[in-house]
Amino acid sequence: MNDTTKLNPQLDEAGRLRHLLRLKGLSREFITGLLDRAVSYQTQLGEPPARDTLLKGRTVANLFFEPSTRTRASFELAAKRLSADDLKRDVNMSSRTKGESLLDTVYTLQAMQVDVFVVRDASAGIPEYITQNVIPQVAVLNAGEADTSHPTQGLLDLMTIRKARGTLDGLTVTVIGDIAHSRVARSISEGLAIMGDNELRLVSPQGLNADPELYPQAHLTSDIDAAVRDADVIMALRIQKERIKEKSSLMTSMEYHQQFGVTEERLQLAKPDAIVMHPGPMNRDVEISGPVADGSQSVITQQVHNGVAVRMAVLAAVTEARLS
Amino acid sequence: MNDTTKLNPQLDEAGRLRHLLRLKGLSREFITGLLDRAVSYQTQLGEPPARDTLLKGRTVANLFFEPSTRTRASFELAAKRLSADDLKRDVNMSSRTKGESLLDTVYTLQAMQVDVFVVRDASAGIPEYITQNVIPQVAVLNAGEADTSHPTQGLLDLMTIRKARGTLDGLTVTVIGDIAHSRVARSISEGLAIMGDNELRLVSPQGLNADPELYPQAHLTSDIDAAVRDADVIMALRIQKERIKEKSSLMTSMEYHQQFGVTEERLQLAKPDAIVMHPGPMNRDVEISGPVADGSQSVITQQVHNGVAVRMAVLAAVTEARLS
Amino acid sequence: MNDTTKLNPQLDEAGRLRHLLRLKGLSREFITGLLDRAVSYQTQLGEPPARDTLLKGRTVANLFFEPSTRTRASFELAAKRLSADDLKRDVNMSSRTKGESLLDTVYTLQAMQVDVFVVRDASAGIPEYITQNVIPQVAVLNAGEADTSHPTQGLLDLMTIRKARGTLDGLTVTVIGDIAHSRVARSISEGLAIMGDNELRLVSPQGLNADPELYPQAHLTSDIDAAVRDADVIMALRIQKERIKEKSSLMTSMEYHQQFGVTEERLQLAKPDAIVMHPGPMNRDVEISGPVADGSQSVITQQVHNGVAVRMAVLAAVTEARLS
Repeated sequence: MNDTTKLNPQLDEAGRLRHLLRLKGLSREFITGLLDRAVSYQTQLGEPPARDTLLKGRTVANLFFEPSTRTRASFELAAKRLSADDLKRDVNMSSRTKGESLLDTVYTLQAMQVDVFVVRDASAGIPEYITQNVIPQVAVLNAGEADTSHPTQGLLDLMTIRKARGTLDGLTVTVIGDIAHSRVARSISEGLAIMGDNELRLVSPQGLNADPELYPQAHLTSDIDAAVRDADVIMALRIQKERIKEKSSLMTSMEYHQQFGVTEERLQLAKPDAIVMHPGPMNRDVEISGPVADGSQSVITQQVHNGVAVRMAVLAAVTEARLS
Repeated sequence: MNDTTKLNPQLDEAGRLRHLLRLKGLSREFITGLLDRAVSYQTQLGEPPARDTLLKGRTVANLFFEPSTRTRASFELAAKRLSADDLKRDVNMSSRTKGESLLDTVYTLQAMQVDVFVVRDASAGIPEYITQNVIPQVAVLNAGEADTSHPTQGLLDLMTIRKARGTLDGLTVTVIGDIAHSRVARSISEGLAIMGDNELRLVSPQGLNADPELYPQAHLTSDIDAAVRDADVIMALRIQKERIKEKSSLMTSMEYHQQFGVTEERLQLAKPDAIVMHPGPMNRDVEISGPVADGSQSVITQQVHNGVAVRMAVLAAVTEARLS
Repeated sequence: MNDTTKLNPQLDEAGRLRHLLRLKGLSREFITGLLDRAVSYQTQLGEPPARDTLLKGRTVANLFFEPSTRTRASFELAAKRLSADDLKRDVNMSSRTKGESLLDTVYTLQAMQVDVFVVRDASAGIPEYITQNVIPQVAVLNAGEADTSHPTQGLLDLMTIRKARGTLDGLTVTVIGDIAHSRVARSISEGLAIMGDNELRLVSPQGLNADPELYPQAHLTSDIDAAVRDADVIMALRIQKERIKEKSSLMTSMEYHQQFGVTEERLQLAKPDAIVMHPGPMNRDVEISGPVADGSQSVITQQVHNGVAVRMAVLAAVTEARLS
C-alpha cells in the first residue's frame, strides 16, 4: 500500500482496481500494467478477437443515461468476449420515466447480483456517487461523465500513442477543438501527466477555451498553426455543431474547418511521423478533413480497435480484484 | 392427477407446470416445491450468482407490451443464468406499429422455435389467450397482467416472507395503497390463501379500494393504524401519482404520505420483528419513508434478490415439464 | 473458378460466399447447397432447435436502418444458435442522430472486430456500398434492401417451395399484391429463374404494377383469377395500407380483399395441392383471408421456420469462406 493508493478510492488496500472513475490518482506502473494487459487481449484486425472466460457467470450492466454508440458497443463486446452476461438498460427510456431514482435502479440491479456497472451520465459526479452506495463486491466503471472524465477513452488513447510512438514520455501532444466541454481532453491530459514528461497544447476557438485551472500544466492557445508545429500527436475533438452556432454565431462549419480543422496542410507542420487521432464520431471536413482521417498518419481505426482491448483489461482488473 | 390439476390449465396431466398464469389453482405442495427450488438457485449477495445449464439451447422470448424495468431485467438474468438464449421484443415499439397482430407475433416466434414466452400486457386475459394458441411444447409465463395477476411477484413475496418469518401460516399481512389497481395485491392474496391460515388486511384511500368480491377473505379498511397493529408483514404498494390526483383531487403526495405512508411511527404499531416489503420502484417519502425503506426491518432488497431465483425456478419447472 | 463466379462480387475466387447481396448471379448448384445446408440446420417444431459452434467467438452486428421484427429476430436467433456474439444497433435511433455517417459506423464496428454485418436499409445500394468499404475478412448480408432485394427471404421461399412441392423446376408461381414496391417479389423471381424452368405470374392492382424491365420473363397481369388458375404456388404480398389509399384512392381494404385477396374461393382455382405463402406480417382479411392463412394449404409457418435455418446456412457459409 502506497500513498497514491491511500488517496484513491478507486483502489483497494492491495492497490488493485475497485472502480474506474478517472485516470488521476493511478500510478504510472498501474496504467502501464493495464495497457500491457490490453495488448494481451488484442489480435490483429481480420483475425478472430481475443477471448477469455474470466467473467464467465458474471453480469455486466450498462447504465447509459446518455445516448452512445461506440463506447457502448465497445463495452458490450468487451464483456461478451470475456464471457460475461450483459444487461442493457436505457434508463432514460424506462425507469426514469417511471420515477425510479438512480439509486433505486442501482440497488435493484445489485440485488440481482450484477457485478459491474458501466455508467455514462451527463451529470458530473454520478459514477462516484454510485461507488459510494454499492456493496464492496460491485465495481463501477465510468463510461463517460459530463465534461469531466472518460477514463477508458484516456486509456485507449494512451495505448494508441504508445504503440505508434513507442513511448509515453517526452511527447508533444496537441488537442484541438471544444476543450471547454471535452471529457476526452480531460482524460488524456490526466493520463499524459502521469505517464511522463509530456507537453500538452490545447487549441480552441473563442468561447470553447479550457478552464486554465483544470489544465495547469497545459499550453492554452488559439493559434493552431503554432500548436501543431513539431507535434508528435494531433488529436481533433468532435465539435458539436450546436456549439459552433451558439458560442460564435458568425462561424459556420466551413469557417471552423478553415480555422481549426486538421487539414493536410496543417499536418505538414507537425513532425513527419506525427499521428492523427479523433475520439469519434467524426464530422468529416469540419474538425478533420477526409484525406487526413483516412490517411497514413491517422490512427483513428486503431483507437477504436484498442478501445475493446482496454475495456477488456479494465473489466478483468476489477473482476480479479474482487476474486481474491 | 389430482382434482386441483384437472381444474388448472397451467398444469399438465402429471401435475407439472405447463404455463404460469396465476397462483390460484396451484397447490401448497406445488408452491412449496417452487420456493425450495428457488432457494437452491440462490447464492448470497456478493457471491457469483447460481448458474445451471438446464435451458442450454432453449430460447426465451420477452414480449413486453408494457414498459418494465425490474421484472424484465429479472427474467432476462434468470434466463441467461440458466444458459438460455434470450430474445427481447418491445412489441409496442415495433410490430404493433406495423399492424402485426399479437397472435401473428406469437405464431412467428413459435415457428422460430422459441420455447418460452414471458408476457407482460396491460390487458387482462392476454397471457391466457396466448396459452390457448401455442403448440404444446411452448410455455407462457405471465410477467404482469393488467390489474389481475403477477404470479412471479407473488412467489417472490412468499419466498421473502417465508425466509424472514420462517413460516407461511398464521401470519397477519397488511397491504397498503392502491389496491384497486394492484396485480401485486391480487397475487400475494392468492398465494397467502393457498399457503396457510393467514389474515390479510387491505388498506387503501377512498377511490382506490379493493373490490370486495375479489378479496372475499380479506379485511378491507381505510384505517391504516388499526391495520398495521400487530402485523407480521407490512407491504406498501407503489402509488401512481396520476392516480392520487385523479381519484382524490385534494390529496398531495405529502398528504398521502401522512395518511397512508409506511413511516417509522406506524411501523412501531406492528410486531417488533415485522418486515416491510415493497414491489418497487418506490416513491420514497410517498408510500414509504426513506428510513423505513432502508431500515433493518426492510426486506425490499431481498425481494429483488429472490425474484431472480424464483424466475429461474419457474423457467426450470416449465422446461422440465416439456422434457419428459 | 467459373464465369458466374468471376462476374459476381458476392463470391470469392474459389466460388465461396463472401457476401450475400442478391440471388442473381448465384448458380443453381450453389443455391441447392445452401438449401441443403439449411435443411441440416433444422429440427422439427417442438424439438430443441439445431445448434452449432461454428461461429463461436465471432461477432454478428445487426445494422437495421429500417424497423423490422421477424427478419431481425430470425437473424438474431440464427447467430445465437451458431454460438456467435451478437450486437444490435438501431442506427436510426442512435448514431445517425449524432451525425455519424454510415461508413464511420461500419469502420468503427469493423475496428471492433465485427465479422458479419447484417444490413437492412430503405435505400437501394447500401449493402453493396458497404461491401466495397470493408476489409476482406468482413462479410455483409443483405437483410432487406429498399424495393430491390431480400435474398434470405428468397432463399427461405425456395426452401419452402422445394419441401412442399419436391422440386424447384416446372412450377407455376403466382405472386399477388404490391409488386412495384416488393423486394420479396424481386428475390423469388431471381431465385425461380436460377433454379429451373418456372412460370412466374405477377398480379397487382393498378398503380402497383411491376416494372416490366425488372421482370422480363414474368407474366404481368391484373386478372387474379386467371393468374391463380392451375398455379402450384400462391404468394400473397403484404400490402401497405397507406399505398392502397395513396395509389387508388377509391379502394378500401375490403375492396382490395375482394379484388386481390387470396380467398378460399380463389384458392380452388389453383392446383388441388397448391401451397399458399406470405412473407408476413399479414394483414388478415386484406391480402389473405384468415381461413386460408390458417388452412391446410398454408405454408406460412414453415416459411418462418425455414427462415432461421436459411440464415444459419448463410452465416455458416460466409464464415467458412473466411476460415480457409
